[in-house]
This record gives sequence, C-alpha cells and structure tokens, in this order.
Amino acid sequence: MFFTLQHSDSSSKARAGKIATAHGEIETPIFMPVGTAGSVKGVHQSELRDDVKAQIILGNTYHLYLRPGTNILQKAGGLHKFMNWEAPILTDSGGFQVYSLNDIRKINEEGAKFKSHIDGSFHLFTPENVMDTQRQIGADIIMAFDECTPYPCDLKYATESMHLTHRWLKRCIARFEETEGLYGYEQNLFPIVQGSTYPELRKQSAEFIAAQGAVGNAIGGLSVGEPHEDMYAMTDLVCSILPQDRPRYLMGVGTPANILESIALGVDMFDCVMPTRNARNGMLFTSEGIINIKNKKWEDDFSAIDPNGTSFVDSMYNKAYLRHLFVAKEYLAKQVATLHNLGFYLWLVKEARTQIVNGTFSEWKNVLVKKVQNRL
Amino acid sequence: MFFTLQHSDSSSKARAGKIATAHGEIETPIFMPVGTAGSVKGVHQSELRDDVKAQIILGNTYHLYLRPGTNILQKAGGLHKFMNWEAPILTDSGGFQVYSLNDIRKINEEGAKFKSHIDGSFHLFTPENVMDTQRQIGADIIMAFDECTPYPCDLKYATESMHLTHRWLKRCIARFEETEGLYGYEQNLFPIVQGSTYPELRKQSAEFIAAQGAVGNAIGGLSVGEPHEDMYAMTDLVCSILPQDRPRYLMGVGTPANILESIALGVDMFDCVMPTRNARNGMLFTSEGIINIKNKKWEDDFSAIDPNGTSFVDSMYNKAYLRHLFVAKEYLAKQVATLHNLGFYLWLVKEARTQIVNGTFSEWKNVLVKKVQNRL
Repeated sequence: MFFTLQHSDSSSKARAGKIATAHGEIETPIFMPVGTAGSVKGVHQSELRDDVKAQIILGNTYHLYLRPGTNILQKAGGLHKFMNWEAPILTDSGGFQVYSLNDIRKINEEGAKFKSHIDGSFHLFTPENVMDTQRQIGADIIMAFDECTPYPCDLKYATESMHLTHRWLKRCIARFEETEGLYGYEQNLFPIVQGSTYPELRKQSAEFIAAQGAVGNAIGGLSVGEPHEDMYAMTDLVCSILPQDRPRYLMGVGTPANILESIALGVDMFDCVMPTRNARNGMLFTSEGIINIKNKKWEDDFSAIDPNGTSFVDSMYNKAYLRHLFVAKEYLAKQVATLHNLGFYLWLVKEARTQIVNGTFSEWKNVLVKKVQNRL
Repeated sequence: MFFTLQHSDSSSKARAGKIATAHGEIETPIFMPVGTAGSVKGVHQSELRDDVKAQIILGNTYHLYLRPGTNILQKAGGLHKFMNWEAPILTDSGGFQVYSLNDIRKINEEGAKFKSHIDGSFHLFTPENVMDTQRQIGADIIMAFDECTPYPCDLKYATESMHLTHRWLKRCIARFEETEGLYGYEQNLFPIVQGSTYPELRKQSAEFIAAQGAVGNAIGGLSVGEPHEDMYAMTDLVCSILPQDRPRYLMGVGTPANILESIALGVDMFDCVMPTRNARNGMLFTSEGIINIKNKKWEDDFSAIDPNGTSFVDSMYNKAYLRHLFVAKEYLAKQVATLHNLGFYLWLVKEARTQIVNGTFSEWKNVLVKKVQNRL
C-alpha cells in the first residue's frame, strides 16, 4: 500500500491524497459504505460501483466470521470474489460488534469471548485469530483487534483498556508479520488509537500507535455517545501526533457535518452505518438539509427526490412516490433511499477533495456544515 | 389500441402478435410483472425496462385505490408519471383482492362491499366506480369488474355468478363509454370470461364476452386451485370462441409450464405473482429447472446463478453468495432472485415468440415443459 499526500489545505488541516492498493486506488478524503455481511443492504455491487461511485467498502469481520464463515470465504477465494467486488475492501476487527451486539461477553488478556447473536454458540476472538480471520476474508486493509471503550468511561478503565489495546496490537503485528495474504495480493494492517475522551490518554495512545510505523492509522472509540466537541477535540489532538504521510481513518463517523469537520482536522477515511441505516428509516441527507420522506408534507410533492443529487434515483423518482413506497412498506423504498444517501455521502467527500485541491475548502465547508443540518 | 396477429403456429394454436398502445408496443406472447402498489417489489423501474426487458407491467386497483389513493394519483397525472414508468400498464379491477384479501365482504347486485386490510375502513366497489378509479389510475388496459369464483364452486353459484359478471360488464362498458381518459391518451377495456370449470358455462360466457366486440378479452377464474387439466381444458374451449384478431389474456397464470401450455392453446398475455413472490422465498426458475437457493447443497457452489440467464445478476453473482444472502436475510437476496426470475419469465415468452415465428414452437415447447419442472 502506498499513500500519496497530494494537497494540504492552508486554512485548515484538511488533506487530499491517494491510497494505492492491490485492488486499485482510493482518492481521499473518502467515505466507505458499510457492507456488513458481504452486502451493502439493498444495493447491487454494480450500483455501488457505477452509481454511488464507492471506491472502497467495509465488511464486518464479526458478521462474516459467523456467516457465511471463513471456510466458505476461503473456498471462494476471499470476500472480493465471493461477492464480486473488485475494488478495495476494509474489514474491521470484529471487536466493536463483540461489545455492542453481545450481552454475554468476557474480555481478558487473551481476548474476548462472546456468544453468537445468531445461534447462541460461544466463540473466542484473540488478536492472533482475528488476524487469521482477516487473512481468510482477504480485505485490502485490515484492522487491529482492540477494545472500543464505551462512553462515559472512567479514567481507570480507559487507561487499563488502552494498555490492553496496545498489548493486543503488538500481538496483532507479530501475527500479521509472520503470516501472509492467502490470495496472492498484499494486505495492510491499521492500528487503532484509543483513550476515550481523556486528552492525556489519547496523546499517549497516538504516540504509541505512531511509533509502530504502520502504513495507515485509525482513531477508534469516538462517535460512541460523547459530545461532538469532545470528538473533535480528540480527533484534532490525535491527528496532530499521527504521521502526516500516512492515511488517517476515523472509525464509525458520522453525520455529514461530522465528516466535514473531521476532514478539516486532517482525517482521510470514514465509515458509518448512518447513510444506509437512516435511509431504511426514510431519512435522506441532501446538500440542502435533511428530509424525513415519511412526513405527510411530501404526500403530493412530485418534485425530484434531490435536484442536486448524483444518483440515478434522485431524478428518476419523485418525493411523493418515495413517500408512498415507505408508507406501503415496499422494498424499493429502502433501495431508493439508500442509493440516494450513499450517493450524497460519496459526493460530499469528493466535493471536499475538489475544494481542498482548489484551496477553497474552509469557506465551502463552513457554509455547507450549516446547510446539511437543516430540517427540510 | 390495435392488435396485429403476425404469425399462427401450424402445429398448435400458438400465436405471435403485436399490441400497439398509447405508451408503446407490446410483442406477444407477453408476461406482465406484477407491480401491486406501483412497484414491482425489489426492482427499480430502470431495471424492469433495461434488464428484465418488461414491455408492460400490471398494477392492482385495490391496492392503488387504498394507497396512495386516487387523489394523489390524479394529482401526479396518473400512475405512469407517479412511478415514472413510460411503457404500457394494465390494471386489474380490484375484484380479485376484494375476494381474496378480505374476510369481511358482501357481494350483491350493486357491487362488492369490503373492509380495507390496511385500516379496517369500509369501501364499496361497483362496476361504475371501478371504471372511474381505473380512469384515475390511467392504465393503458383496464379490466372489467367481475366476480372471480373460487374453486371448487357448485354449478348453481357458478351460473349465478357468471350472470352477475355479465350484468356488471354491461354496466362497466356503459360507464367506460360515457367517460374518457383523464390524461390525454386512450385507455382500453378488457371484459373477462368466467364460468368456473363448467364447460357449458365457459362456452356461454365466452360467447357473451366475444359478442361485446372488445379490443381484447380476458379469461378469469382459473389458476385458483383447480387441476391443471381443467385449466387447460377451459382455456382451450374459451380460446376457440374468443375472436382470433383480438389479444387474449389469461389472468393470474402461472408456472413456466403453465405459460408454455397456455401459449400453445392461443393465449397472448399473462400475469402472475409467482416469479416475484417465489423469488422472495428463494425459488429460482431457470431453463434447466427449479433451484431452491436456500438449500445447503449450494453453500459452496461458486458457479454463476444461471449460466443461461439473461439478467445481469445471473453472471454477476454466484450461487453460494446468493444462498448466503438468503440465510443472512439480506435485502439483496430478494432483489437478485426477483431480477433473475423476471428475466427468465420474459426470456421464456420472448423465446416462445421466436419459436412461433420460426415454426418450431411445439417441438421446443415439449422439450422445455419437462425441463422447467425439474428440481435441481
């Protein structure tokens, strides 16, 4: 993997760059649609590629490990071939789902034991076997196994957890280095900064992570319920420590405004279920603000879903029709809204990149951050 | 509307023709995907047009009347504009859903009173108001309001019901003739032959219907549980009476084998929920037979869904992946299976047409009828 920093904004810390992977290039800043179990819900791979113009998608190790399982994925020749997605893929480490989807779980030095939310069977994730699983899935970028601390989190727990994450990282790196990709192409390991909302811990963690010399670095444990100001403060602090010449990935973020503000702080990569999950509930993000398409006010509004939108659905369907699809619980409702939202998120980061390159990012960002939070 | 009979098969009663409507031409024999409430479930209109190659779709008056309602449809300028479907549409009369979706309903000379399955409100469908509703929806082909008799049905009920359907037809025609389309293009009314599985009634009804001189005619009350032999016998009898120079529509039929056998009897138009509904349960129809994609046997079969398939999904996704999508209850599962099945049904009628034109229909049909019933 190779990261080229192409432009740095003079009025903010925003950057434009390019990541080269075995499955093609990614222009940053970038948003990665979430394809939990090998599918971005309601969207064909051809639509992701040709309409949404996704450059990289995210898969969840926890879900893929449970279903279809690594045996099937390995027989298929990896996730790319299994789902027929030829562009880059990033997988998380599974830790976040172990903590968020499981009431019954136990974390100790060895790893995290959990009960499958599907069939109740018990499983153990360790730094080593999570590296092995991600080798079997075959993503271009794989994530270290960490503990994502909840919010709020007391200083003692946050400190101990951060150190556990650091020890686990050393085990991940060791396993990663003593193994190789199963399908003939390179994989890349990103470590994750933790430390909750404590600046001293975040500083310590970012320095520890930076010292590993990884090809890219991630910021975890944010967007878990803390105030946005804390999220931005931690992101700013961590970005000031992580190396300039490596991509920075802010995990699980966020709203369009969150993404714009975090780009301004120096983040290059994002993922979030928000555009897809909220779409399925009828919430549309647009450059003019947020639409709850289920509202009665759209009942006889036959204007295009989003005249500024980039997806084919934006001009093909009208608001009243999309509202009807939601009210009638038609599958097409979720499909249309998901394509719209993903198209918007990908437009947002692409436009941010253009503005960075043109030297107009901050001005543009300050206007758009307000607009995208309007309720239409 | 204008029907051109282009070829008649010498070894069967199969025909190839062309129907010209205000929204374009339809080559027959044709299958009409069912778009109940203004959406073929799980499929974009652009996919219906460009991938499935649907030439006409069906809407359900009962569903559209209840939701979004004729007020919205009229404001939109009709269903074509509401859903952005520029090719022909056929709407049923709503009768079938009144009888099949409602425990509480009352049929008398005036019409059929029923309780909405959505909100429990009471409504009355009459031959007159069903014509008005179909004027508001704006389909190119609209259906007379009839009573679809259940199976089995005693002779007395079947006889009385047939006469009621005939009296209702006269009222439909009167209302249809004293009104006109609301959106500046021509609509066409098809009457419906009833008579259950009684040859004498079917003959009587077909003669009555034929005498109305409608631009096209339909056969109703079949595929409601009777043996296939009875369905074919009634279809054969009715087709021998209905005019040669008008299209014949066999309502609600059926399996691929049913469609092939009925084409051989002289039917030109079909609709059925089977390809779409069964797709959502994982049943795929192919030219080699039927696949239940949920079966464990497909778990590690990475071959294309259907190497002979015409939809983009057939070569884009593999069987193991589609099975995984079903097991994981991913939305994409239903989308892929629906596109596959509709693509197959449209291929089936198109290929039937080619074989009719080439004079090879019966031979081809006899081989294919057996193959499509295989369980793979």
